[in-house]
Amino acid sequence: MTLTFPVCSQEGVLRVATIKLKNPPVNSLSLELLTEFVISWEKLENDKSCRGVILTSNIPKIFSAGLDITEMCGKNAAHYAEFWKAVQELWLKLYTSNMVVIAAINGSSPAGGCLMSLASDYRIMADDPKYTIGLNETLLGIVAPFWLKDTLVNTIGNRASEHALQRGLLFPPADAFKIGLVDQIVPEDKVQSTALSMMSEWLTIPDHARQLTKTMMRKPTVDQLLKQREADIQNFVGFISKDSIQKSLHMYLKFLKERKG
Amino acid sequence: MTLTFPVCSQEGVLRVATIKLKNPPVNSLSLELLTEFVISWEKLENDKSCRGVILTSNIPKIFSAGLDITEMCGKNAAHYAEFWKAVQELWLKLYTSNMVVIAAINGSSPAGGCLMSLASDYRIMADDPKYTIGLNETLLGIVAPFWLKDTLVNTIGNRASEHALQRGLLFPPADAFKIGLVDQIVPEDKVQSTALSMMSEWLTIPDHARQLTKTMMRKPTVDQLLKQREADIQNFVGFISKDSIQKSLHMYLKFLKERKG
Amino acid sequence: MTLTFPVCSQEGVLRVATIKLKNPPVNSLSLELLTEFVISWEKLENDKSCRGVILTSNIPKIFSAGLDITEMCGKNAAHYAEFWKAVQELWLKLYTSNMVVIAAINGSSPAGGCLMSLASDYRIMADDPKYTIGLNETLLGIVAPFWLKDTLVNTIGNRASEHALQRGLLFPPADAFKIGLVDQIVPEDKVQSTALSMMSEWLTIPDHARQLTKTMMRKPTVDQLLKQREADIQNFVGFISKDSIQKSLHMYLKFLKERKG
Repeated sequence: MTLTFPVCSQEGVLRVATIKLKNPPVNSLSLELLTEFVISWEKLENDKSCRGVILTSNIPKIFSAGLDITEMCGKNAAHYAEFWKAVQELWLKLYTSNMVVIAAINGSSPAGGCLMSLASDYRIMADDPKYTIGLNETLLGIVAPFWLKDTLVNTIGNRASEHALQRGLLFPPADAFKIGLVDQIVPEDKVQSTALSMMSEWLTIPDHARQLTKTMMRKPTVDQLLKQREADIQNFVGFISKDSIQKSLHMYLKFLKERKG
Repeated sequence: MTLTFPVCSQEGVLRVATIKLKNPPVNSLSLELLTEFVISWEKLENDKSCRGVILTSNIPKIFSAGLDITEMCGKNAAHYAEFWKAVQELWLKLYTSNMVVIAAINGSSPAGGCLMSLASDYRIMADDPKYTIGLNETLLGIVAPFWLKDTLVNTIGNRASEHALQRGLLFPPADAFKIGLVDQIVPEDKVQSTALSMMSEWLTIPDHARQLTKTMMRKPTVDQLLKQREADIQNFVGFISKDSIQKSLHMYLKFLKERKG
Repeated sequence: MTLTFPVCSQEGVLRVATIKLKNPPVNSLSLELLTEFVISWEKLENDKSCRGVILTSNIPKIFSAGLDITEMCGKNAAHYAEFWKAVQELWLKLYTSNMVVIAAINGSSPAGGCLMSLASDYRIMADDPKYTIGLNETLLGIVAPFWLKDTLVNTIGNRASEHALQRGLLFPPADAFKIGLVDQIVPEDKVQSTALSMMSEWLTIPDHARQLTKTMMRKPTVDQLLKQREADIQNFVGFISKDSIQKSLHMYLKFLKERKG
């Protein structure tokens, strides 16, 4: 079991679900987790009684370490394609949700963890300087996809995005707040309660007007991926299959194992 | 008479007009006011001796309460279409003006009041925390048109716009200044004098180069509306004619009357 | 000799070149300098051992005064066209470089000086309030080209760009830092050492991933110029050839000579 959430726990009149990521040790986004996540998300989306989702982690100190590198390493092209399609789907579901999505970032959130945060409507992060958030793809020799770049630009602007993406910067909470990568930083033990109280603020707005407004803002970015989704998959498969990329991912995995060991 | 302004009062060498909105009790943008405003504006625009306009209110505590809701309530489709075309025209005239347009925001400025401010070249607001400014459409169950959203994005960026529009946020002056929704906040009794002195700064720039620069910046946004103006009208008429929208606008009007009563 | 630089001085493992602009008295960007610059730049770009360039001035108090106005004054259309093509080429080379480009802005940097800074990857400015940076074209009655406007918007956002460009604002270092026109301000005697240490940070990132990311960010802006390069030249030639523009540039040159004399 990788996800635990009371579907539409009716917290007062809020009708808000909480998704707690639980894929030890670091909430890696494996193909299995992505698949389960999307199925669960669709259920919530179709449940008219559910108006908001709080996305958080059930594992101390880590929101999500991002994509599971073992899915991108030593597998065949068909596997890479299936995996990338699931990553796209995760983003599409989150970014186009009719529900209010609040990320309660209670730990580090690099790469894919940052992707999930960026695709939410509001980001609250635990204010502990040991935690960082950002898109650090270039550090591993890989490149964020254009639609994730677009999501970052939509959030922190063009220049901060260019700088952060080129250098693969990971920001501690205070810096992340300063550049607008998160909306609020609070002590770790206040993350969940702040998420709930912000959710109640958001839910004072009539759903229909809010959803139309959200769609108006995000549709152009979403359409860019929808109209070249297959090309984006092929681009990923071609890049990740390169010997040089496979070699550096293998070395990175080895480094992670040794550090852990 | 809803507008009072000395056409091109030659204040020193400045040749600046001041438009003082006066449509009691709250400077609602009625069809009549919009029509008069546009006619007066065209006169100024064609008057070569006029280089700048200061846009302000003649009514204490309110810059403009925004669109007159009675124009959107209980009327027929032809009326809604005429009204919306006048709203578009107001924005087009302000946003594409060859004159320097400075908003002297001497009171609250929600929705349509914020629209006029955003379409100016420079915004000075009275620093009184009782006044607020913002696009609060979603609070009423309606949605800002795409060209007003674009104007907001052009001013405060994508993320701040998405957040403010989804939640219908109204900002007190200090917060409005912080996110760039206004350029300057000053004590209420300094609003007009600051507007005049900023105007004299702007008018040190050769008109022709400044106008070409302004057009270069704003033309793409303006063209978006020009090429789908009729569709935007039909979209508004269709939306506002819905039973559910009419019902919530009626309730809002009733609430306003009772509060006033 | 207008440029002095040790080509790929192997500073430790950094393999970084330094270009010191030297065209007394104020590093004007003459056609000759632009031509030499581009040839030198191509050599560096093709030198696989060179990973980064620091761009700075060899002349005290001035980074670059911008385009050489004598190239735009009293010449024929063919000359204006050749000159403008060289200006475009300077921007294209800098903005699309595979190398890390850091501007060490050790003096004032108006107009073309600001262009070179904006086209870099990172900007460090000497923190002396006597120095300013910005695009002050409108002050001279001329207009920044659209691709330079785009570069500014990419750096400081739409609103700050519109405001700065309309008014031809020149910012002292502290203000330039505040709006994001430069990334860092340091005491003048620390500019070069800070540039080197920042370069070493940037060079920790694998080149290939960083270059792909940079291209992803900048290609749309670059493509806009590439697809209408000739039209942009003709637009410049037509504008600069106008009697009114020639007259104001002549007056400005006369003013500069008298001030100098």
